[in-house]
Amino acid sequence: MIWQVGLLGLGTVGAGTAAILGDPAGRHPLLEKLHLRAVGVRHLHKPRHLSLEPGVLTTHLESIATDPEIHIVVELLGGLEPARTLILAALQHGKHVVTANKAVIAHHGAEIFTAATAAGRYVLMEGAVGGGIPIVQPLKQALGANRLHTVMGIVNGTTNYILTRMAQEGADFAAVLQDAQRLGYAEADPTADVDGWDAADKIAILASLAFGERVKRESVVCEGIRAVTATDIAYAERLGYVIKLLALAYQRPAGLDIRVHPTLVPQAHPLASVNGVNNAILVGGDPLGEVMLEGPGAGAGPTASAVVGDILTAAAALEAGLGFHPLLSCNHEGFAETLPLAQIASRFYVRLLSQDQPGVIGQLGTCFGRHAVSLESIVQIGHQEGLAEIVVITHEVNHGQLQAALEDIRALAALQSVPSLFRVL
Amino acid sequence: MIWQVGLLGLGTVGAGTAAILGDPAGRHPLLEKLHLRAVGVRHLHKPRHLSLEPGVLTTHLESIATDPEIHIVVELLGGLEPARTLILAALQHGKHVVTANKAVIAHHGAEIFTAATAAGRYVLMEGAVGGGIPIVQPLKQALGANRLHTVMGIVNGTTNYILTRMAQEGADFAAVLQDAQRLGYAEADPTADVDGWDAADKIAILASLAFGERVKRESVVCEGIRAVTATDIAYAERLGYVIKLLALAYQRPAGLDIRVHPTLVPQAHPLASVNGVNNAILVGGDPLGEVMLEGPGAGAGPTASAVVGDILTAAAALEAGLGFHPLLSCNHEGFAETLPLAQIASRFYVRLLSQDQPGVIGQLGTCFGRHAVSLESIVQIGHQEGLAEIVVITHEVNHGQLQAALEDIRALAALQSVPSLFRVL
Repeated sequence: MIWQVGLLGLGTVGAGTAAILGDPAGRHPLLEKLHLRAVGVRHLHKPRHLSLEPGVLTTHLESIATDPEIHIVVELLGGLEPARTLILAALQHGKHVVTANKAVIAHHGAEIFTAATAAGRYVLMEGAVGGGIPIVQPLKQALGANRLHTVMGIVNGTTNYILTRMAQEGADFAAVLQDAQRLGYAEADPTADVDGWDAADKIAILASLAFGERVKRESVVCEGIRAVTATDIAYAERLGYVIKLLALAYQRPAGLDIRVHPTLVPQAHPLASVNGVNNAILVGGDPLGEVMLEGPGAGAGPTASAVVGDILTAAAALEAGLGFHPLLSCNHEGFAETLPLAQIASRFYVRLLSQDQPGVIGQLGTCFGRHAVSLESIVQIGHQEGLAEIVVITHEVNHGQLQAALEDIRALAALQSVPSLFRVL
Repeated sequence: MIWQVGLLGLGTVGAGTAAILGDPAGRHPLLEKLHLRAVGVRHLHKPRHLSLEPGVLTTHLESIATDPEIHIVVELLGGLEPARTLILAALQHGKHVVTANKAVIAHHGAEIFTAATAAGRYVLMEGAVGGGIPIVQPLKQALGANRLHTVMGIVNGTTNYILTRMAQEGADFAAVLQDAQRLGYAEADPTADVDGWDAADKIAILASLAFGERVKRESVVCEGIRAVTATDIAYAERLGYVIKLLALAYQRPAGLDIRVHPTLVPQAHPLASVNGVNNAILVGGDPLGEVMLEGPGAGAGPTASAVVGDILTAAAALEAGLGFHPLLSCNHEGFAETLPLAQIASRFYVRLLSQDQPGVIGQLGTCFGRHAVSLESIVQIGHQEGLAEIVVITHEVNHGQLQAALEDIRALAALQSVPSLFRVL
């Protein structure tokens, strides 16, 4: 039996996927039993560096989702619509679905997986997080014996590239962003990447897989990298840290602690040396301990590797003629209780500018102490335009307490401003 | 339906496996459908820190492999026999088999997987390589779309622990080994670890999975770490390298290049910073690029995590009532053609002791040149007991050519000895 595949979208990842399907030699032998029957695109006659069988291209995306000859629909359109509608249509028409679309899964996962379970079909999404890194399937299968408590990592290549270059060159965010756009590492509208939305989509998906509950995308605390300055990167380095955009999810006794933000990572931590466009995801649990999976987080090749891996998994399920497979399907019911921002605890890095006069450090210490914010260090680290620049690293404290202390501090006569506030891993 | 599990062996990993099966809350819900029906041990009345249902323990291992009520047999005895016989018996009696036994798979894999295919059952072995790191399943599934060309890594925790401590303390092999034995990081008989046999078993398994062909264990070129000295570690560091015991397999045009040996790894390479008992495996292919998976390579918890992950996979297959699953089963037919040692190319590090007299470096250069061994650097790096200590790093060259050059060099009047010869990544 030949398993017919329908592809929605022929952008970078779509073209990479079609290229693998058209050139199966030397890969898993099951690829020989797959046939790319239809490819849905917006423009039929756009020039493409890819040879497809004649008649495969169509602009009728809906017809691919409903074609009774097609067994597996691969959604690589990105964005929420029409991706959501086409995925639901494909499931209703009895197809397994493979997608690399983190946004549609993070925002409409509950609806999509409910429909998949009702239809007795799978929605596989290895390519949605971490590009070529195998992480979705290990969370669903090989790591399933664990009580996982942590999943975190660097899941956005664009921001990691920008932060890596800022650190290497001592350059500021705006200049590096512009250069990254010129080189194709950042989009013309970089919002989804630099404001952390893409990373928030991905950590919502990872947390849901790791902890076995649905996660509302809007409950992810999300802060991007626009506020990271060359100054902070330099000070962090002097204190033994690098600044990374981390996506973090912890299963806490009081609920799910889930967030995306720039983070001071100790230089010896394995995530500190993940540079450039690479991604890395760290999974912690009992009795596993910690594993870290690192690799190319985006790009045609790596993401197509993940997408075709999922197509193979779907084809294998078809080939085996199996009933509903409990490790491939989603068995989540409720939504996770997430912690509100004020109750999320972490260490913090605070950079302050104040009048350069005796007693300031004492006044700061008093304000922190009043709100039970315990300090790891407080250092006058430099001068800037006649003002003293003071860097504080706190012990672990709730965000709410820290904000209350900073409110008192902002009212101090000597204080000029609080230019930076970041979390510390 | 409850799926009955029979466990062979109740050592560290066996006890860890039983502990997870006895405490399923907060893990994958499928664990609730598993029941540990029988545990085969050598001594019934040995004290154990584990509460098992009464009547579960037995010394009749064979009865577990043949019990018609048991669906999944978990072999955690280690070693070749009786593991091999019991695995074959379990397959003949229609059970899926889970094992963490690298030796029996590396030496008897062809026989075992042939029997599994004939019986329509699976032999799963995530725990055999890399402890808790998900690597076997990704190679079989998520990475299956790729043409893999490289799989390499640090797959033996004992030797990595010894080399890490030697590097950190400037200590010699014998002293660190003794201390590692005292602390329980090395066995009383450390041969399988320090001579590279364990790593050779594992790379034979990984290469077979990555390249889709059977690999004869005896064709793995294998060299342990007994010859690594504190001197070499110090010189390597000065040249920008750390010394690691790497297991490497490359799919070359002329055949499989597979070996285990101490290796100078550039300090910036991701494997260079994998320290202590951690393992890490790097997989390279097209269109994936490279991914690296790192984590605890041994120990009760991590290995039990992998073993129970496989039990879940087997139970899911039973639950789904499926036919034979092409990604879980082994579809290898032939054996890989492996390259003989003389034809294996790599860079080399050679340390030589010679009379401290002018012209020696010229004579060495001439000998290397005569055998077309091109040099990256040749440095008189120090003195030892009145002799000049010279370190040579070659460009990539066949082992045969290098040996021919060294034969000429050993015949030089000024040469005292060639204390060290290692490969460079």
